[in-house]
Amino acid sequence: MKVELICVGTELLLGSIVNTNAAYLAEKCAGLGLTCHFQTVVGDNEDRLAMVLQTAMGRSDIVILSGGLGPTEDDLTKETAAKVCGRTLVMHEESRERIRLFFADRGMEPTENNWKQAMLPEGAVVLENHNGTAPGMILETEQAKVILLPGPPGELTLMFEESVVPYLAALTSQVICSQTVKICGVGESKAEMMVKDLIDGQTNPTIATYAKTGEVHIRVTANAQDRKTALKLIKPMVKELKTRFGNHIYTTDEETTLEKSVVDLAMANKLTITCAESCTGGMLSARLINVAGISDIYKSGVITYSNKAKRRLLGVKKSTLQKHGAVSEKTAEEMAKGAAVMFKADVAVAITGIAGPDGGTEAKPVGLVYIACHVKGKVTVREYRFSGNRTKVRESAVSAALSLMRECILVYYSKVTFGKGES
Amino acid sequence: MKVELICVGTELLLGSIVNTNAAYLAEKCAGLGLTCHFQTVVGDNEDRLAMVLQTAMGRSDIVILSGGLGPTEDDLTKETAAKVCGRTLVMHEESRERIRLFFADRGMEPTENNWKQAMLPEGAVVLENHNGTAPGMILETEQAKVILLPGPPGELTLMFEESVVPYLAALTSQVICSQTVKICGVGESKAEMMVKDLIDGQTNPTIATYAKTGEVHIRVTANAQDRKTALKLIKPMVKELKTRFGNHIYTTDEETTLEKSVVDLAMANKLTITCAESCTGGMLSARLINVAGISDIYKSGVITYSNKAKRRLLGVKKSTLQKHGAVSEKTAEEMAKGAAVMFKADVAVAITGIAGPDGGTEAKPVGLVYIACHVKGKVTVREYRFSGNRTKVRESAVSAALSLMRECILVYYSKVTFGKGES
Repeated sequence: MKVELICVGTELLLGSIVNTNAAYLAEKCAGLGLTCHFQTVVGDNEDRLAMVLQTAMGRSDIVILSGGLGPTEDDLTKETAAKVCGRTLVMHEESRERIRLFFADRGMEPTENNWKQAMLPEGAVVLENHNGTAPGMILETEQAKVILLPGPPGELTLMFEESVVPYLAALTSQVICSQTVKICGVGESKAEMMVKDLIDGQTNPTIATYAKTGEVHIRVTANAQDRKTALKLIKPMVKELKTRFGNHIYTTDEETTLEKSVVDLAMANKLTITCAESCTGGMLSARLINVAGISDIYKSGVITYSNKAKRRLLGVKKSTLQKHGAVSEKTAEEMAKGAAVMFKADVAVAITGIAGPDGGTEAKPVGLVYIACHVKGKVTVREYRFSGNRTKVRESAVSAALSLMRECILVYYSKVTFGKGES
Repeated sequence: MKVELICVGTELLLGSIVNTNAAYLAEKCAGLGLTCHFQTVVGDNEDRLAMVLQTAMGRSDIVILSGGLGPTEDDLTKETAAKVCGRTLVMHEESRERIRLFFADRGMEPTENNWKQAMLPEGAVVLENHNGTAPGMILETEQAKVILLPGPPGELTLMFEESVVPYLAALTSQVICSQTVKICGVGESKAEMMVKDLIDGQTNPTIATYAKTGEVHIRVTANAQDRKTALKLIKPMVKELKTRFGNHIYTTDEETTLEKSVVDLAMANKLTITCAESCTGGMLSARLINVAGISDIYKSGVITYSNKAKRRLLGVKKSTLQKHGAVSEKTAEEMAKGAAVMFKADVAVAITGIAGPDGGTEAKPVGLVYIACHVKGKVTVREYRFSGNRTKVRESAVSAALSLMRECILVYYSKVTFGKGES
């Protein structure tokens, strides 16, 4: 079954934003076994959008549009799609009520524009928006199924997962199942080398690698007449990947993130955790606290950006800072030890590094980061050299810290081993 | 003059990579005053690529293709473009020599595939590749100028800057300029209402609104014979927006983010800042520390997720937590005051709220957040009710906190006023 993507937005045509929605939708559709031959970006313009939509409907079975469902004047995706599909807009009472409640909850009055969002094409399958006010919708025509999703990524992804995945799955007579094997602590090139023979020889299941910051995901996809048969095809391939990547696999569950796997591991071992961050400035804690229910094990953490803060809040020695500098193995070690003591945590992680763009030297270039993990008195410190801009270096450091936490807890409590030089 | 982008690559269709080339090219073309109505992504398939290219040449003056110039079998952009433009491939001696030298420099022998890269369509304008082996090219036909660039971003951007920019600049006589007015503390619908008459009456310049989390951006775009005239057209519209949105405008500079404007404001007033975060768990600090050079004013901050941490690290009273709860105006206030004292900061911001998915009650639902900003002894506390999932609530809280910091500093130091009920 063929799917095609149309992303609507002047800001995409102007290059003001990168089209992450297209990448997200494309990856999800591929995972569902849908073939995608075209992606188009078009502005908030009725004639051009109508033309692009007609072309897409003529050559694909499913057309997914994103963007242009907002309350403003230039949002006209819904109006245009309705016209192309020969539908009139009618007031959708449930959506109207949802908008009323949304604003009432906030003690606010909806404007005229907000009500516009409750006008939907007749006969549309309405997709609830649990992250905003604009509902999504599906228009089923003889030519194609036309799916309209809101542009903000947080709204689009939630709606896709909740409503579009089940809809698309029901359309295909073949069942497509996939399982993602998520790996940390192994570089992208190395991971690809390690599965090259599997990729070259693939038929059903197929496997594909996806590089994420500090992680590699390998998706195994099989299609079959029913779910049971598809899962049976997937199983031996996942087993083979487990043999090859061993403890570097942190999950085979779609929903589990790296931070969630670390939090689960700490909870299973009844360990409290804390973070002391310099260059990442709170990003590691923020990612951990993204895991709901973490309050049982994460009580407090600090951002010690200045040397003085490192000394005062974590007890890093003045002599250490003078002799080795703030970005050093020794400082990272003392930060982690200090955090463990100060915040009475079983696991304490410290990050110190040079995120750039300034502050680099020949001996200590931008991208140099030290991460220390303290588990019950035992400290492991690693040196990393990340590339990219300030944001990229900081994001890489956070992923590496999560990976290191996981490794240290596993080594300490489960006595497992990790391959050398793979981290 | 109209330009259109075609990005070629199966990895884009599968969502394995995000299309940063399209964003880069789109932004550059907009800056050169070229109008872009369409971007297309297509795979390494001759028929579909030929179809897309023909469509593009029929409606645009310039077509820029990226990707598919490599040495492998499935790279066929050059072959397809040559066919569509009616050209045969001939050996380009200079490119052949460059490839020979490229490999000789590295002590390697080119393979048969590498020589393929020196076969170019007859009459093509050749663009040298200083970051790789595949040359780019321009095919000038009666219908359109067709520009072929390599896919790897490092090769594409260098070639674009060096060779394509001068080529395009020589082609265009019209110039397009735009300026973005960035607003915080005003909702999207309200902002849209406030400029509805301007949007309805727009011709040149045009204006468009873009909703971001906790922010609204309004882009004013004008086209004219030269840059000076275009800027002259933009100026009165930006002035009008300044009159309407007043101090809610935090910048009219393309590069400045909300966090950067807050950091700049603090620096200008020689103020040190700190953050005490509960539900946001470090996100606010992380966003502030994303601003390079912040070390002059941000020394340390804390994440106080548990009640005990709020008491121990910030001196929040036990009685306050018992009487009002951790998510309350009073707790937020004491957190901010405590942080200001503990970390000797001029400006201290505290966030406490219920991010969900659990922990909400009828009286204190998920999404309820209190933010306190302490400026030199004066505390302002606001109550917010955000919607969406855990991540959305936390992101909204961080944007609101930045907005509040900015407002409090401005009110205290610049004695400015803000419209009521707009925050």
